[in-house]
Amino acid sequence: MSSRKEFRELVPPEEAHEAIESLDLDGGTEEVPLREARGRVLAERVDAGLDVPGFDRASMDGYAVRARDTFGAGEADPAVLELAGAVHAGAEPDVTVEAGTAAEISTGAVMPEGADAVVMVERTDRVERSSTERENGEAVNGAGEGGDAVELRTSLAPGDHVMLAGADVAAGERALGPGTRLTPREIGLLSALGVDEVLVRSKPRVGIVSTGDELVRPGEAVASERGQIYDVNSYTIATAVEEAGGEAALYPHAGDDYGEMERVLTEAAAECDLVLSSGSTSASAVDVIYRVIEDQGELLLHGVAIKPGKPMLVGEFPDSAYVGLPGYPVSALMIFRHFVAPAIRRAAGRPEPRTASVEAEMAVEERYGEGRTRLMPVGLIGSGPSETARDASNGGRTLAYPVDKGSGATTSLVEADGIVEVGPDTAYLDAGEAVSVDLFSPDVRPPTVFGVGEDDPLLTSVLDDLDRPRYLTIGSRQGLRRLEQGVPDFAVVTGATDDIEARELGGWTRDWGLIVAPDNPGGVDGLADLVDRELRFVNRPTDSGLRGTLDGTVEDLADSRGESRNELVERIDGFELAARALESPARKVASGSADAGLGLRSTAEKLGLGFVPLGEERVRVLANPERLEKPGIEALREAVGNAPTELPGVGR
Amino acid sequence: MSSRKEFRELVPPEEAHEAIESLDLDGGTEEVPLREARGRVLAERVDAGLDVPGFDRASMDGYAVRARDTFGAGEADPAVLELAGAVHAGAEPDVTVEAGTAAEISTGAVMPEGADAVVMVERTDRVERSSTERENGEAVNGAGEGGDAVELRTSLAPGDHVMLAGADVAAGERALGPGTRLTPREIGLLSALGVDEVLVRSKPRVGIVSTGDELVRPGEAVASERGQIYDVNSYTIATAVEEAGGEAALYPHAGDDYGEMERVLTEAAAECDLVLSSGSTSASAVDVIYRVIEDQGELLLHGVAIKPGKPMLVGEFPDSAYVGLPGYPVSALMIFRHFVAPAIRRAAGRPEPRTASVEAEMAVEERYGEGRTRLMPVGLIGSGPSETARDASNGGRTLAYPVDKGSGATTSLVEADGIVEVGPDTAYLDAGEAVSVDLFSPDVRPPTVFGVGEDDPLLTSVLDDLDRPRYLTIGSRQGLRRLEQGVPDFAVVTGATDDIEARELGGWTRDWGLIVAPDNPGGVDGLADLVDRELRFVNRPTDSGLRGTLDGTVEDLADSRGESRNELVERIDGFELAARALESPARKVASGSADAGLGLRSTAEKLGLGFVPLGEERVRVLANPERLEKPGIEALREAVGNAPTELPGVGR
Repeated sequence: MSSRKEFRELVPPEEAHEAIESLDLDGGTEEVPLREARGRVLAERVDAGLDVPGFDRASMDGYAVRARDTFGAGEADPAVLELAGAVHAGAEPDVTVEAGTAAEISTGAVMPEGADAVVMVERTDRVERSSTERENGEAVNGAGEGGDAVELRTSLAPGDHVMLAGADVAAGERALGPGTRLTPREIGLLSALGVDEVLVRSKPRVGIVSTGDELVRPGEAVASERGQIYDVNSYTIATAVEEAGGEAALYPHAGDDYGEMERVLTEAAAECDLVLSSGSTSASAVDVIYRVIEDQGELLLHGVAIKPGKPMLVGEFPDSAYVGLPGYPVSALMIFRHFVAPAIRRAAGRPEPRTASVEAEMAVEERYGEGRTRLMPVGLIGSGPSETARDASNGGRTLAYPVDKGSGATTSLVEADGIVEVGPDTAYLDAGEAVSVDLFSPDVRPPTVFGVGEDDPLLTSVLDDLDRPRYLTIGSRQGLRRLEQGVPDFAVVTGATDDIEARELGGWTRDWGLIVAPDNPGGVDGLADLVDRELRFVNRPTDSGLRGTLDGTVEDLADSRGESRNELVERIDGFELAARALESPARKVASGSADAGLGLRSTAEKLGLGFVPLGEERVRVLANPERLEKPGIEALREAVGNAPTELPGVGR
Repeated sequence: MSSRKEFRELVPPEEAHEAIESLDLDGGTEEVPLREARGRVLAERVDAGLDVPGFDRASMDGYAVRARDTFGAGEADPAVLELAGAVHAGAEPDVTVEAGTAAEISTGAVMPEGADAVVMVERTDRVERSSTERENGEAVNGAGEGGDAVELRTSLAPGDHVMLAGADVAAGERALGPGTRLTPREIGLLSALGVDEVLVRSKPRVGIVSTGDELVRPGEAVASERGQIYDVNSYTIATAVEEAGGEAALYPHAGDDYGEMERVLTEAAAECDLVLSSGSTSASAVDVIYRVIEDQGELLLHGVAIKPGKPMLVGEFPDSAYVGLPGYPVSALMIFRHFVAPAIRRAAGRPEPRTASVEAEMAVEERYGEGRTRLMPVGLIGSGPSETARDASNGGRTLAYPVDKGSGATTSLVEADGIVEVGPDTAYLDAGEAVSVDLFSPDVRPPTVFGVGEDDPLLTSVLDDLDRPRYLTIGSRQGLRRLEQGVPDFAVVTGATDDIEARELGGWTRDWGLIVAPDNPGGVDGLADLVDRELRFVNRPTDSGLRGTLDGTVEDLADSRGESRNELVERIDGFELAARALESPARKVASGSADAGLGLRSTAEKLGLGFVPLGEERVRVLANPERLEKPGIEALREAVGNAPTELPGVGR
């Protein structure tokens, strides 16, 4: 294993950026149908091949006339022209407008020969010309549409309400330049030109090779006892590649066998513009990749002085670029976004997303002293009356708090909104310090409301009623502490809250107790059975409010027996065996690996297990007093008030 | 036609927004494979179905041990444990760690039974235990990987470098809430849970019915003489629907026949959540649609007090919503974006794009006095040293200038960057006044450099070398005037520039003259032939620099003949017949509808026509002196300097 160490000549992040910029990811060009060209980038200039419009075109409903025939006409002295016929849109005119005549015309119709202007229908009347002329030499108004003449109450200049052929775009004109991204507007202009296929830049083809014998594709069965896990990076990175404008191709998993790795990597390199490897965190797989790149191509750098992402590789195969991403999903995605996505966007001709970043303030202090650049995932909280970062600048502030559950945790993917790049010389960020947050995508919004605290099934359905909430189940104790620090918008807690300043938004009660096998075959009767009988128990951690409630009950039992608490719990097998999540003790009972678990009546019923009630505890939703004006808090108050309490063991 | 007028009870824009909000565009839900779920929106909550990780997992390469065996160990006093075996990622452990033993373990591997902590390989050495013990009871360092024991130079607590089963997500935990948009991060979390299909909101299906007998789909042949034009709205609106998160379905064109329109509209209504009609500007087609909606469904409103977009319709079929868009492409797209796209985004569960707007200043004054809300298309110019609107806020300004070529012009689609909504009471916007520009899409960037002036083939290839330039061919005269007003970054002109303040970036000469049929069958010899012979001539407009140059030559000819200019030009057939675009006179010659046209040698050669030279004129690129620091101007200067002059008739 020690041979690995010599690979690590860590280069500064700037060198990694330069190395990736030096790679050629250009995918060439391709013809695509216009209908499917949205978002693509023109590979060459498009000149107009025809005039738009292709003919002199009426731009109003009315009558096509010779302007000269209308000179001097007005309300007081209308001109009367004989009706020579009609022209409709989409039809060839079968009428010529001679002096003294007019032709009815629709918007968009071809101007008939002889006519050089159009009068709007609103400025005309149809009259009977022949008869009235015979009687008194004047037209009679109001003869309706049946009249054989038209009276114009306005004079016209040549060209009035006529769009000349080529007035919009003329044949030979430059319509769109190379590099133009095709949005609905450009698609519109190309449609007008009759173009139905365009030459665009091909999307850079990016092959993704997952490494690691332990990986299983989602949807397949995973054998946990053999250490198998689902492959997170393949789909995550593929989706991120597509978001950046590339086309992703997934290759089969490669284990750490040299021959197999070589076969997969060279196949991917032959078919793609860029090969990304990712997946395994095992040193031996990384070593094998390293050797394959060295043998088949060139390694430009190995190891970057950045956290996370140290084990990043950059190289070239003869016909493809190569980047090796770290194995942990969060690290892999961060390194991809930071180093690789800009290169894919460049090759695809995509602009950098404009709003990839927002300004924020640190919600808490953060210490970091490793002396290399750190990409710190952070969650955002809008502290003002409005939820958006944008509006936050008009009054409210946006707060950023570090999300660091260790790079192995996929949940930190969704608990963070973006990344703060912390320079190698920054060892300390103060609470309130200004930071720039590089968002995971331009669509990222801070949650409408951000809460922490106890895990609770009724709360879960309350959250479902809210629009984009974020809730971290860190237990009542940590929840209260964070609320005291002023970070979250609300905390959900059980037990005593001392004298914390907070506004209670509402609450409910829940039945808690011991979860046992269906129908309680062991006849577990209460807490004393855990002490006195040989039962395997699963507890919850001390941060959990449920555990706090249990601890109180344990003390009562000890008191009533005249024993010390410690004596009592030492006799409970598994009292210190704490499962992090609400349902975990119950699930251990269900799987047969425990006889009793601390839990809720609702969990027992959900999982079809037995339940031995030990009491009822109150769950309270407490709002940060500084954030009462946040719309998300108002929505939460309402959702708590409307929360259905039909869950077993839940009451008001 | 007068019967139409009674339809028009214009409602305020707010009522149109409300009417559209009242429509039900919900497309239901559907299962999609995770691999194709990017951008989709979860229809229901996803709870974890399993623990992640599914087993207690080593988070370091090293040795799995019992923490108790390491108590008190340190650099000075290492602990030595017998090597009991090895566990690799993706394999079931075949070793049990008894007291006093350790098992080699890779990152990600299953913790073997008995072990409760992992020591990093860096804090260990492999030693020969058995032999050294025999010799002197102490392990010998540096025995390498072959040693049968491991020496630990650190003490461990239970759980060190172990990720417990369920530590990331535990079975039963809420993983993602309903309404969550799936980006790479959420795809990652779902992958970790083994989910490969998700229930998402269906994209609202939007049917697009183009109306108008004159419309032809791009790619087909268009018969201009019959007034046919390409259908612009179908593809434009379909693309805009997709951009908003909908799924677009194009229906066949419907003419203004009641039966045909009814058939197409009811078919679309049966298959779609929303039907949009658009295309025809003809009153009769709109009337027919109106009647169909009234007969088959309900019309909620007809006519909105907004410009453009007055003729907008909102209604409902029994199973579908309906919106009728204006016929002109620019109007149709603006009304779609303003009223319809937000409703589609809502139904699709998409967030409003964050940066749909930028703050700008009016570059020129604008008067408008119609008393109804106006959606004014504007182009953007970054005036500062940096091109982006974002950076503009840190120093430079973003200027907005109205683009109004009439709603019939598709080119204004690409010459504008967004829309300024001008209230009904605003009759005047001053130059410098602050306006908020609603961008056509979040990806819209102001052009890197914005120029106006003469049309010129060499300039066109210079533009191709620039990244996102915008150039409006408004002729030398208008170009100079706009440059004087300080609006564009540069102007391209021929002829005299008086004493305009500008910096010349470079220029070239071009041969101009008369373009005639191939090989000049009429033997046209010069300008005098136009005066003296019966030749049909096509000129350029007076704004064109080329026309200015011709006018000078005409005056010289008149002087030399002792005639007045007016006498001379009255004898030129077509002297006042000005074609807007550079190649249009030549193309009229090519089509046989003219004998001679004003143009350039390069145009004649490009189109394979004859050329009678009349002179050489200088084309100059003049920069706005206030914008010399714009990077786009520097890039332009360079591109002008490098411009290839191999075009026929072009020189330095």
